[in-house]
Amino acid sequence: MKIYIVPVATALLAISQQSGAIPPPPPPTAAQLPVKDTLAFEITEGLTTEVGPRQAGTEAEQRARDWAVNKLKSLGFANVREEKFDMPTWVRGEEKAWVVSPFPTPMAITALGNSASTGDKPLEGEIVYFPTYDALVDAPAQMVAGKIVFIDHQMKAAQDGSGYGYFGRARFTGPNVAAKKGAKAIIIRSIGTDNHRNPHTGNTNFEAGVAPIPSGAISNPDADNLVRQVKRAWAIPLPGSQSELGYRPTPVIVRLLLTPNNLGQQKSGNIIAEVPGSNASLPPVVIACHLDSWDLGTGAIDDASGCGIITAAASYLKKGPPPKRTVRLLWAGAEEVGIWGGKAYGEAYKAQPHALAMESDFGADRVWRVDFKLPESAKPLEDKIAAALAPLGITRGKDPATGGADVGAIIAAQGLAIVDLQQDGTRYFDLHHTPDDTLDKVDPEQMRQNVIAWTTVLENVANYEGELALGVKP
Amino acid sequence: MKIYIVPVATALLAISQQSGAIPPPPPPTAAQLPVKDTLAFEITEGLTTEVGPRQAGTEAEQRARDWAVNKLKSLGFANVREEKFDMPTWVRGEEKAWVVSPFPTPMAITALGNSASTGDKPLEGEIVYFPTYDALVDAPAQMVAGKIVFIDHQMKAAQDGSGYGYFGRARFTGPNVAAKKGAKAIIIRSIGTDNHRNPHTGNTNFEAGVAPIPSGAISNPDADNLVRQVKRAWAIPLPGSQSELGYRPTPVIVRLLLTPNNLGQQKSGNIIAEVPGSNASLPPVVIACHLDSWDLGTGAIDDASGCGIITAAASYLKKGPPPKRTVRLLWAGAEEVGIWGGKAYGEAYKAQPHALAMESDFGADRVWRVDFKLPESAKPLEDKIAAALAPLGITRGKDPATGGADVGAIIAAQGLAIVDLQQDGTRYFDLHHTPDDTLDKVDPEQMRQNVIAWTTVLENVANYEGELALGVKP
Repeated sequence: MKIYIVPVATALLAISQQSGAIPPPPPPTAAQLPVKDTLAFEITEGLTTEVGPRQAGTEAEQRARDWAVNKLKSLGFANVREEKFDMPTWVRGEEKAWVVSPFPTPMAITALGNSASTGDKPLEGEIVYFPTYDALVDAPAQMVAGKIVFIDHQMKAAQDGSGYGYFGRARFTGPNVAAKKGAKAIIIRSIGTDNHRNPHTGNTNFEAGVAPIPSGAISNPDADNLVRQVKRAWAIPLPGSQSELGYRPTPVIVRLLLTPNNLGQQKSGNIIAEVPGSNASLPPVVIACHLDSWDLGTGAIDDASGCGIITAAASYLKKGPPPKRTVRLLWAGAEEVGIWGGKAYGEAYKAQPHALAMESDFGADRVWRVDFKLPESAKPLEDKIAAALAPLGITRGKDPATGGADVGAIIAAQGLAIVDLQQDGTRYFDLHHTPDDTLDKVDPEQMRQNVIAWTTVLENVANYEGELALGVKP
Repeated sequence: MKIYIVPVATALLAISQQSGAIPPPPPPTAAQLPVKDTLAFEITEGLTTEVGPRQAGTEAEQRARDWAVNKLKSLGFANVREEKFDMPTWVRGEEKAWVVSPFPTPMAITALGNSASTGDKPLEGEIVYFPTYDALVDAPAQMVAGKIVFIDHQMKAAQDGSGYGYFGRARFTGPNVAAKKGAKAIIIRSIGTDNHRNPHTGNTNFEAGVAPIPSGAISNPDADNLVRQVKRAWAIPLPGSQSELGYRPTPVIVRLLLTPNNLGQQKSGNIIAEVPGSNASLPPVVIACHLDSWDLGTGAIDDASGCGIITAAASYLKKGPPPKRTVRLLWAGAEEVGIWGGKAYGEAYKAQPHALAMESDFGADRVWRVDFKLPESAKPLEDKIAAALAPLGITRGKDPATGGADVGAIIAAQGLAIVDLQQDGTRYFDLHHTPDDTLDKVDPEQMRQNVIAWTTVLENVANYEGELALGVKP
């Protein structure tokens, strides 16, 4: 017997077509949820308090995995398991920076993941200023060689976080570009929208064959100050350099001490748990968050709260009758430093067909938009979900859903359906990858709205028996 | 010839009583000021950029004094001078802290001024938790001896900054109380109202004969986390301790590394500048700010902006005809670490009668109230000032003015008149004594309102020829 979860009129028709059998009660709807969900916050509070920072590949991430297994088992999920994998591990050392001239001042700096070490003796050099990442890309190598690159481009806040890709290039590949042009080091203005002395870390990557250079981010107030120093230095002729041809401005000299280490291959792992579906022939829905965090904060918004949200929603689903499809929770390891957990999941499960993927990895502020990537045949499902979410203040997006980092590999491998519950990211990049990513930044009220939205989507997609995966075009 | 600056009707009367002489034009009034003052901000920008942190007794404070002398001379002030004095100097070293158990986590900590060093090897100990300073005061010594005291009391924001005295006790004298009860160290929740991982430093003092102990402040998010750890530890019996009589809870173990140094007596100094008055027989008005800052930030709100505000106001006064009374600017040294500059000023000038004192040392947010301490005879002056400030949104306070730290000694010595332009301190303790005290926190619009208010008061008090000082009651 099949019970389709479809819009009400169709549902009544479907039931009337069944030969007299009484269907089981429908799963709880969003409206029936406890108004005051506390589980998502409890998970976030527990993980940030009892584990704290949990950088990938470190013993802290192992403690986080142990914590996660205990928590998911105690919540009654099925098939809770740890699936280990190896990944390259870089850890922070000392990090200090100073402007030496024209005006000596300390700067708040943090090393970017994969940064080279300056060695125990600070490195000193002249700043070459670039207002944007593109200006560095366009600069001739001789302008950069032997200098310390400074990229000043400042990220602006956006509700959908859309500035990250554009401004983030200064971090993602700025160090690689600088290294290829012969820079001895690089500092970037933090990829962040706050004005606190807490610089934003995050990974950078060097191409094969490019020797990493010391690479750090300074806080926005420090970048503001460095810009003021650069402007003043430009107005001060270098002693003896004045002539009819003009003058060379006074150089801005910076000193850096960054002593990170590469630990080589270390263990990380994914944690998996399930709400078993009643129909084993239907491919599962996979919902993801990531368990690792950067080391500077306690990873409350990135991404303990994502794990809290998806787990609370799955827990509500579990309290009703079994869903048709298995809902699999993936608390991924090692996302921050290369999405190693997502890749490991994609590799481990490539032979098992999946239906649909979702991820929560953008803090805990309210969901404001839902995006879909579903087959044409699932249009009624999409309509039903959008209608159910509208009372929560969630609008329907026009662009196709793209999914999250940790489900990227399995989506790409199988061409899965996707639902994205887009969170308000206006203040996300105030906190992202900084020491300030702590529990007090999580708003329990907005987090509850996330849980209601997630539960609503899950109860619909997990009970939908039509085709969901779109498949990979050859 | 005397021109009294008094309410309009009286002023007309005063002029009509003069024997036909044409008075000089009146000094500019607030309404005639340039709407867009930039000088206060320029001074703040210059001092924070070209000097940056300028802790008392260090070479950075000497650079700040040199900067100040140049700036005040270039602005055309008279009698610009440096007046040096000696003061004991304490400087920060390394500072790190961790919770060791029950759940290992790093904490953001900063040493309090006059803290002892832990030595190069971290100190480890059991936390004894106190919700308030008073609870520590009331605790028996045996509860505290050999432990690390943690005072958790959290300051709340208030427009008038009135929580500082009450909550600040945890910092001002908490370490002394803890040391006397035999504590091996103390950590306090920062005396601050923000939720950033930037702990608030500030001075603490130990009584003569009490050996200082390592004393640090942790940030609010770290204190929140430590409280959660303490609560959890209380719920976990110490292994083997369970009996019918109950159990001993698991201890919370903290590790501290604080390596500050005492440098002994070092040079600090006051910078003095004047707008000379036309009537040498009238005692001067002294207006103060402080030049030194804590080392963690660049001292933008504490107190470069105070120096900017008083100096811009004095500069506008200087552009008009000479005031009757000399207005003396005191950019005091070494305020943060014991008000040494204010004391040195009081000592150096005790033989010279003063009329009235004012200070700006509470950030750059708008003035919302004016308080007076003037002789009864100066009631018309008080009324006139209050009326002139009302259009700026400044109300008249009911309590007597008390003055600022740096004019405290001279006020006490001579019983001076005082006008306090009270600033909105709602967000002051978000930033106070933290790395976040940087230029971007100064709102130029609110700063301008300060300058207009200060200029208004100065043009009135500096041209008032009646008695101002109240004198010291024997």
